[in-house]
Amino acid sequence: MVTLADIEAARKTLAGEVLRTPILPAPPLSALTGAEVYVKYENLQVTNSFKERGARVKLAALSADERRRGVIAMSAGNHAQAVAYHARRLGIPATIVMPATTPYVKVKATEARGAAIILEGETLAEAQTRAEAIALERNLVWVHPYDDPHVIAGQGTIALEMLEDAPDLEVLVIPIGGGGLIAGCAIAARAVKPSIEIVGVEAALYPSMWNALHQGSRPCGGATLAEGIAVKNVGTLTLPVVRECVSDIILVDETLIERAVNAFLTQQKAMAEGAGAAGLAAMLAAPDRFRGRKVGLILCGGNIDPRILASIMVRELERADRIVSFRLTIPDRPGILGQIATRLGRFNANILAVDHHRLFLDVPAKGAKLDVTIETRDAAHAEEIFAALAEDGYRPVRMPSGKALE
Amino acid sequence: MVTLADIEAARKTLAGEVLRTPILPAPPLSALTGAEVYVKYENLQVTNSFKERGARVKLAALSADERRRGVIAMSAGNHAQAVAYHARRLGIPATIVMPATTPYVKVKATEARGAAIILEGETLAEAQTRAEAIALERNLVWVHPYDDPHVIAGQGTIALEMLEDAPDLEVLVIPIGGGGLIAGCAIAARAVKPSIEIVGVEAALYPSMWNALHQGSRPCGGATLAEGIAVKNVGTLTLPVVRECVSDIILVDETLIERAVNAFLTQQKAMAEGAGAAGLAAMLAAPDRFRGRKVGLILCGGNIDPRILASIMVRELERADRIVSFRLTIPDRPGILGQIATRLGRFNANILAVDHHRLFLDVPAKGAKLDVTIETRDAAHAEEIFAALAEDGYRPVRMPSGKALE
Repeated sequence: MVTLADIEAARKTLAGEVLRTPILPAPPLSALTGAEVYVKYENLQVTNSFKERGARVKLAALSADERRRGVIAMSAGNHAQAVAYHARRLGIPATIVMPATTPYVKVKATEARGAAIILEGETLAEAQTRAEAIALERNLVWVHPYDDPHVIAGQGTIALEMLEDAPDLEVLVIPIGGGGLIAGCAIAARAVKPSIEIVGVEAALYPSMWNALHQGSRPCGGATLAEGIAVKNVGTLTLPVVRECVSDIILVDETLIERAVNAFLTQQKAMAEGAGAAGLAAMLAAPDRFRGRKVGLILCGGNIDPRILASIMVRELERADRIVSFRLTIPDRPGILGQIATRLGRFNANILAVDHHRLFLDVPAKGAKLDVTIETRDAAHAEEIFAALAEDGYRPVRMPSGKALE
Repeated sequence: MVTLADIEAARKTLAGEVLRTPILPAPPLSALTGAEVYVKYENLQVTNSFKERGARVKLAALSADERRRGVIAMSAGNHAQAVAYHARRLGIPATIVMPATTPYVKVKATEARGAAIILEGETLAEAQTRAEAIALERNLVWVHPYDDPHVIAGQGTIALEMLEDAPDLEVLVIPIGGGGLIAGCAIAARAVKPSIEIVGVEAALYPSMWNALHQGSRPCGGATLAEGIAVKNVGTLTLPVVRECVSDIILVDETLIERAVNAFLTQQKAMAEGAGAAGLAAMLAAPDRFRGRKVGLILCGGNIDPRILASIMVRELERADRIVSFRLTIPDRPGILGQIATRLGRFNANILAVDHHRLFLDVPAKGAKLDVTIETRDAAHAEEIFAALAEDGYRPVRMPSGKALE
């Protein structure tokens, strides 16, 4: 059982070795949620996630013999980079097993940190089996991403720092993958401030801790934006802590995770990966639960594919009716596009894309369909524009959202 | 002449009223530039820019009579929001004049801060003339964005905080619009640490301070990503300070500003507007100038249009050959696309877009052109794929970059 003393010791181990990240008030997120939100910026660590803390504490605790033998970890994500980075700094050979399907950028990033990479298995489960075999064969020390007392103690240092810098916090909302982050933070926070509430968050597609607490059998699986917390098996060390200290677990769907990533970026000006934005997603899922309270969020990771992020931003503009697509049936003759484009320009609607379609049978042979994507100010502006086009004799049909980038 | 004492007084005025933002080591930017980079996160202010400091100091210095009369400012950007926000907090009526061409989101954001907005003039210069007339008519107090001792003192508090938190800094690289930020910071930094070097940055499209220092006559104008420092007239108060304290001014072109915005986001996980990334752009422009040195950057603003930012990220992926477009001439018959798509799939190249063109006369009537956009790992991966397609009898022609989003 990890104690406050372990976490305080971990903090000494980490001093000068990982960043003491800032926790700051987040007025835009407060305005969005109706709570008083504070954000702890763990995305500013060297490898851009909190995972460095647990990994460093674990590695620093190894014996000389274990260091010589070297360590192994299985991860396609932040844990891989954290272990690779700190192992190199400590002069410990590190082997990282990743599923063969891991995006090349992540493989390259981990390799650049000095680790030996082994690509094995189609799934995380297969990679795990293979990694365990390699660990035995080569006599390597296993660095578990969450189910390890040193790792839990390392992650717990986050809550110590948060309550030191912002002692008034009333509730911490913490993402759950295997439970290392929430377990460590819950132990630390409860010890320092017994009145604090700890709320957990899981992606609705991976409700493994929720199942464990509620004897539930919700399915775990699917493509989530929050791959950092897409874990099917909770930790044997973390589960009892969560059972004791966490008041409830909020399950967040993909749309809310996406909106939270977007809000972090466009409103709070910080880059969060899906798991890093999960706490905010939980606040959006249950605003009444948090309204008026002082809430601490951990922006626990910032590693998200730029193309996915670009797509999320554009999709959010579509949701807000600031990018709008519609289809017109037009006569197929010179000057028509000029008329329409001029009309749109008068409304200050910037044209992003135009496509002609002539193969549809629901228009006359001398007609065409015109698909137009424009930038608008908001829904009212879009309505104004549609009304004007209707006045001109067109019948604009709104196109399904999600078009522009996909 | 603004003195250290003025800046220290400004700091007292600002205590608790603006965020004491963190300055943190930025390992990814250090790796990118070969220097030891520290970033001061002024984008975390409530209105997401440093402009709050100067505005607040100016407003706090007004007499009871001036407060009653109210203030006026002309700005389409961060200064507008800063004045509106702090005027409301101090109970001072604020009028903001913006050019009629100001994007609606910016108008709305400033209005939401409680200011009365007047849209006047096609250009900043016209809006300025109109604003000056209104100030006279209505007897309002002018809040200048940079050429004001209180504003300069307010901005100077940034350098005080930077050197308090990171006293080892050897050089500050500071964006220049009218010069308020650099003048305040130069006065403060030189007073606290006389050995520090101050380097200025301007957008190459707006080299107004450079012209003033070098008796130059480079043209000022054009659409820059760094609209926050697109200023044609330098301040009469700021120019002498820059002349005395700034060792040189680096002019950065649009491509470097764009790359700096992207690096801040995808590597440092922080959202920077063009002006906010200008310091990093200068380091990319003159890496030898900074190599191995401890450099302080001010991420002075984070307000950038999400669609522009999405476009920047995708363009950078194209530059890195991670998104690649090419054109094939194919026979126009069933199964061909299936063959090509399967081939691409075997190379783990994710297909983003496919377009058929049949109207080009340089293909046979029974042929077609196929435009394909794919995700690749890097240039070598793209070359492998092109070679494989060539082996299959196609002649892939690389398409100009910048296609996917534009």
